[in-house]
Amino acid sequence: QTKTNTQDAKMNAFVSSLMQKMTVEEKIGQLNLVTPGGTVTGSVVSKDVDSKIRNGQVGSLFGITGPDKIRKAQEIAVNNSRLHIPLIFGLDVIHGHRTIFPIPLGLSCSWNMDMIEKSAEIAASEATADGLSWVYSPMVDIARDPRWGRVSEGSGEDTYLGCQVAKAMVKGYQGSSYSDPTKVMACVKHFALYGAAEAGRDYNTTDMSRIKMYEYYLPPYKAAVDAGVGSVMSSFNEVDGVPATANKWLMTDLLRKQWGFKGFVVTDYTAINEMIDHGLGDLQRVSAEALKAGIDMDMVGEGFLTTLQKSLKEGKVTVAQINAACKRVLEAKYKLGLFDDPYRYCNEQRFNNAILTDANRAAAREFAAKSMVLLKNNNNVLPLQKGKTIALVGPLADNKRNMLGTWSVSGDPEKSITVLQGLKNVAGSDANIIYARGCNISDDTAFAKKVNAFGKEIEIDTRSPQQMIDEAVVAASKADVIVAVLGEAADMTGESSSMSDIGLQKSQKALLDELKRTGKPIVIVLLNGRPMTLTWEDQNADAILDAWFSGTEAGNAIADVLFGNYNPSGKLTMSFPRNVGQIPIYYNHKNTGRPYSGVGAGKFRSNYLDVSNDPLYPFGFGLSYTSFTYSNVTVSSPTIKQGQKITASVTVTNSGKFDGTETVQLYIRDLVGTVTRPVKELKGYQQITLKAGESRKVDFTISVDDLKFYNTDLKRVAEPGDFKVFIGTNSRDVKEADFKLVQ
Amino acid sequence: QTKTNTQDAKMNAFVSSLMQKMTVEEKIGQLNLVTPGGTVTGSVVSKDVDSKIRNGQVGSLFGITGPDKIRKAQEIAVNNSRLHIPLIFGLDVIHGHRTIFPIPLGLSCSWNMDMIEKSAEIAASEATADGLSWVYSPMVDIARDPRWGRVSEGSGEDTYLGCQVAKAMVKGYQGSSYSDPTKVMACVKHFALYGAAEAGRDYNTTDMSRIKMYEYYLPPYKAAVDAGVGSVMSSFNEVDGVPATANKWLMTDLLRKQWGFKGFVVTDYTAINEMIDHGLGDLQRVSAEALKAGIDMDMVGEGFLTTLQKSLKEGKVTVAQINAACKRVLEAKYKLGLFDDPYRYCNEQRFNNAILTDANRAAAREFAAKSMVLLKNNNNVLPLQKGKTIALVGPLADNKRNMLGTWSVSGDPEKSITVLQGLKNVAGSDANIIYARGCNISDDTAFAKKVNAFGKEIEIDTRSPQQMIDEAVVAASKADVIVAVLGEAADMTGESSSMSDIGLQKSQKALLDELKRTGKPIVIVLLNGRPMTLTWEDQNADAILDAWFSGTEAGNAIADVLFGNYNPSGKLTMSFPRNVGQIPIYYNHKNTGRPYSGVGAGKFRSNYLDVSNDPLYPFGFGLSYTSFTYSNVTVSSPTIKQGQKITASVTVTNSGKFDGTETVQLYIRDLVGTVTRPVKELKGYQQITLKAGESRKVDFTISVDDLKFYNTDLKRVAEPGDFKVFIGTNSRDVKEADFKLVQ
Repeated sequence: QTKTNTQDAKMNAFVSSLMQKMTVEEKIGQLNLVTPGGTVTGSVVSKDVDSKIRNGQVGSLFGITGPDKIRKAQEIAVNNSRLHIPLIFGLDVIHGHRTIFPIPLGLSCSWNMDMIEKSAEIAASEATADGLSWVYSPMVDIARDPRWGRVSEGSGEDTYLGCQVAKAMVKGYQGSSYSDPTKVMACVKHFALYGAAEAGRDYNTTDMSRIKMYEYYLPPYKAAVDAGVGSVMSSFNEVDGVPATANKWLMTDLLRKQWGFKGFVVTDYTAINEMIDHGLGDLQRVSAEALKAGIDMDMVGEGFLTTLQKSLKEGKVTVAQINAACKRVLEAKYKLGLFDDPYRYCNEQRFNNAILTDANRAAAREFAAKSMVLLKNNNNVLPLQKGKTIALVGPLADNKRNMLGTWSVSGDPEKSITVLQGLKNVAGSDANIIYARGCNISDDTAFAKKVNAFGKEIEIDTRSPQQMIDEAVVAASKADVIVAVLGEAADMTGESSSMSDIGLQKSQKALLDELKRTGKPIVIVLLNGRPMTLTWEDQNADAILDAWFSGTEAGNAIADVLFGNYNPSGKLTMSFPRNVGQIPIYYNHKNTGRPYSGVGAGKFRSNYLDVSNDPLYPFGFGLSYTSFTYSNVTVSSPTIKQGQKITASVTVTNSGKFDGTETVQLYIRDLVGTVTRPVKELKGYQQITLKAGESRKVDFTISVDDLKFYNTDLKRVAEPGDFKVFIGTNSRDVKEADFKLVQ
Repeated sequence: QTKTNTQDAKMNAFVSSLMQKMTVEEKIGQLNLVTPGGTVTGSVVSKDVDSKIRNGQVGSLFGITGPDKIRKAQEIAVNNSRLHIPLIFGLDVIHGHRTIFPIPLGLSCSWNMDMIEKSAEIAASEATADGLSWVYSPMVDIARDPRWGRVSEGSGEDTYLGCQVAKAMVKGYQGSSYSDPTKVMACVKHFALYGAAEAGRDYNTTDMSRIKMYEYYLPPYKAAVDAGVGSVMSSFNEVDGVPATANKWLMTDLLRKQWGFKGFVVTDYTAINEMIDHGLGDLQRVSAEALKAGIDMDMVGEGFLTTLQKSLKEGKVTVAQINAACKRVLEAKYKLGLFDDPYRYCNEQRFNNAILTDANRAAAREFAAKSMVLLKNNNNVLPLQKGKTIALVGPLADNKRNMLGTWSVSGDPEKSITVLQGLKNVAGSDANIIYARGCNISDDTAFAKKVNAFGKEIEIDTRSPQQMIDEAVVAASKADVIVAVLGEAADMTGESSSMSDIGLQKSQKALLDELKRTGKPIVIVLLNGRPMTLTWEDQNADAILDAWFSGTEAGNAIADVLFGNYNPSGKLTMSFPRNVGQIPIYYNHKNTGRPYSGVGAGKFRSNYLDVSNDPLYPFGFGLSYTSFTYSNVTVSSPTIKQGQKITASVTVTNSGKFDGTETVQLYIRDLVGTVTRPVKELKGYQQITLKAGESRKVDFTISVDDLKFYNTDLKRVAEPGDFKVFIGTNSRDVKEADFKLVQ
């Protein structure tokens, strides 16, 4: 505490001394974040950016990498600007930097926080070796709508798990302090509610009650703040009718006053300017509103740079408001150690030795395997047996371009391992692989054009669809088993990649249809960035392995799992709907006043006429090559009092033939409240590895804090009454026990 | 004012004198609403109900009709209960009573408030002739999700239009006073937000911000209150995490204190009991919470009857709370004139002369024609020419059972006119009609079983689907034109009838597919209770007439329109999506910060990769057999000041060959606000009838009140700045002018 106080005092003295020397123009310059254009390959600094840096009109920069380029840009700031204030260099480092890990939705399915933290730590290590000190991650937006493309960048639908991931990511990026030159400053995004985009359409309006915000959507941002995240990014959407970027309740009352956030807030890309389209006013007006709401840094749009002085003169903003923002930016630079050494991230030796290392690739391979979710495995068709002939088909089976997934701006697709390569690497002479592409990701050229905004992810073969299918059928007819690598192109999810239909594309369904007729067992390896509708596939395939977009080591990791070198252990963090018409669908829904049991006609109960209420694959679901059986649940006491804890226990047995890892999940239901409570909520989980035949007792401690929720006064309370505790292998298949909270 | 005061004073004196004689038990009895079971055909009063009425344990009754039966029940109350307090008799009279009008969604598409008012007036006339004095209508729940089955019972997605309909319906039912024995007391429902059921699944949770409630969802309820509605029904859903039926903010702070509602609040069917499943507590607890929140009458569940005395003894409710509820119920009885004459609705002469009259049937035929919406009409295939051969096909072409639509409990399907009958009636010898059923509504027996909860709406033919299609194809081959009557069974919409797929059923698509191959022009007559996805049909049919469920005179009215005796004039009050993945889709959406123009790839704009942002048929859309051309829009002044009005004008020309009626629509956009404003909002419309070739100037008065909206303080304000006014034939095809609100 004292040490922190001393450090803070030193920082305050330094920053306030510096600010005394600064003109208002220079202060505003610190609030300006620019990109020279061209995420990686563009010129180091365009002429315009160059002169702005000289003029003290730039506080930070993003979109360039490499110690050499970054040093050159930093030199301009340090040598040529009047006060020699160094720049921060940021980038979209989302799921790994050069070594790409699975997309965040995939990583979250590992339910392994040590691993997730390690993934951020490696990303930080590579990013800092590449000259960077600031990453726009983690994205912690809770999302219940798989149409929304950015579900791929988040951790799914659950608040509790989302908070764990938020904390792990911040810890991984920042370590104990981001003054460490192998750590970066993290930026939690998108504050707030961005994941609730209406109709799953990116950038669309969001709307919800305060109680829903507090209970489900806000906690992961707060978890990142509590973990010490250095910066926060504002979201594009509105909150209560006011864009987040101009929302003072959000940015000041909630974030700073209620939560005590001390870092700075940066907008998302041109978010200030976009408030013109939101209908909040002209650039001067929206820039002033953003500053007054609590925004400190303006990304790319330069509304602050070009209008704040005018607003200041006209009394529309105050010097105090500009000072507050400038101070927060300078404090971040101080904490990053940039005033001590502006070139501390420009370490050529680390650049040469710390990027895409064997260790990092090995980690990527391990993390990818641990992120995969086995959705189906009839008759133990997986793991693949040795000595067999495999027909490897599908447009993603030998496809480097789509392995990395969305927002992998520094990843090199050429360095990625395809499934074909992976199978060969892992199986060696133990398998005979016949490859046939089988179909295009999509045959729709207009659709392909939209998806290919960043490059040719969907390539349409010169052969006709029927020719491709025929080739695949011939391959299948010669094989013992078909492995069909299907799914999405990388940018069918991610930013600005929402889909109204989340099933496999027609071309792929047609291939599956024909393969099915061969009568050969079909293993689908799905590469995807979102939950998909797989009703037909679930009924017709023998096995489905959801591999997400697995990153640089995708093919090796998929092969590890297919051949049983890694027994899959991932569990879904988002529900998979049966059809689009069920959306939004999520496990922790309310019971309603007319719940439908699923049995009987259901007239006057809450259901659809044409589909069940249940998802195809529920939250927390994931199979293993072995099987786990659960004993009944016991509680150490039927009652719990304020300040006390009880233990809920279960014995888990590996009842199959493989060693395996299981994520034992704990859910709680509050049966009676002053506000309605969900049918169950995740409140804990434990990952255990059991040898075939082994049993283990698993204890969960339940404290009164686990029973708390926000009441109508938005106070977090635990109300006396009856509770249920559920323990199981997923959110659907659980065993239960009762207990009571007494006063 | 003085007269009202005197009347009120007389009522107060009467009611308070009566209440002084009442025991607490008798007061609670007045809060009890029961149904003897069996909506129409059940025994008059079951033994249990009989004895409860004698014991003063019943305040009102619903589910029986006929002056004879109702007189018998009333006699028990008046002759055998201690204080002789008469009962109120209610029923689900939704879109007509015995003479069934189009479903409310259809009626709303007339945009004809006189007609809608008249429909309620006729319903009231028939209901009172049938012994009733209270109807559970209008339903004014704004809905943006066509999956929700109850969209059929509402007036669509728009708040402004919804307010007009709410007002017209209350006026039609209640007249200037429901003391008139040909009028009924109305009951506006479902308060509040029921139409926002999540995922379009009936009875599901609802959630939204207060600002969204105030701006879009609450105004129609308030319009009904302002129109003097006698009663309000609580909704099943929760509002801000608390079920409406226990929501004191909603029922007392908003409804009574802010809006000044003076009538009584009844729950929906067993809504109090259902709060046990919502998780609010046991029956005693939820009953007490309901009373304290402001509920006056308990429908069917008898939670009040069985627990309020206990709660009173235990201090959980007060006598004052019971008195307040009892007083409101007695006031309603007083206003209905029941204390003057408990049998005033038991008029055998009216029962014999005022029900299903020729005049009422003629009105039903007229209202049905005016509610239909022509969605497509290529090459003027409609109106049908005389002297031709028509292949009339489809499972709804000769189907009495499904003409009336949902919640037509007193309608007799046997009295309805099928399309086949209607065509014969209207065309006589002018057409040669070959009928073939063509397909089942659905071939899915499990689905049919669910839909057929109230009777055999989906009948599966003994012939195979192919045999039926073959017969239709033969008919088509002999015809000049195909009229295919397709769509939904009546109870595929309505309560507890949500659908995740809102396209035509597979059986009907298969029929259309084969008919298309004949090359004959195809006219689809669609009978439906919700917006459907018609992308294929729009591309492949020559004409589409949306006839909704048109009621008793369905067939005649459809024939009137098909043969051009009535030139269609209906306009959609709900957007028709292209696919389910676009839902929710509505015209008055926000612009967002990244609006997509629809042109170009749209990367980083708000859109989907696989479908456009636009609906297939927009709000306000509807064709005519003639065409209307619009001049540019002029405004009388470029500026408007507080207290002033301006006029926006357009000249509309009937540029086609038929006389026709057009609904000229006025929309306004507020370009800049302190909260984000929708891209356009309906603020007026005028219905004009023009002879072929005729032109007319249409003036709209715009006042500052039309520019108001709720700001973040939930104050309704008009903010100075720029506005756009749009006038056009639907919400998409408009011309615009600018004006400014100055201070």
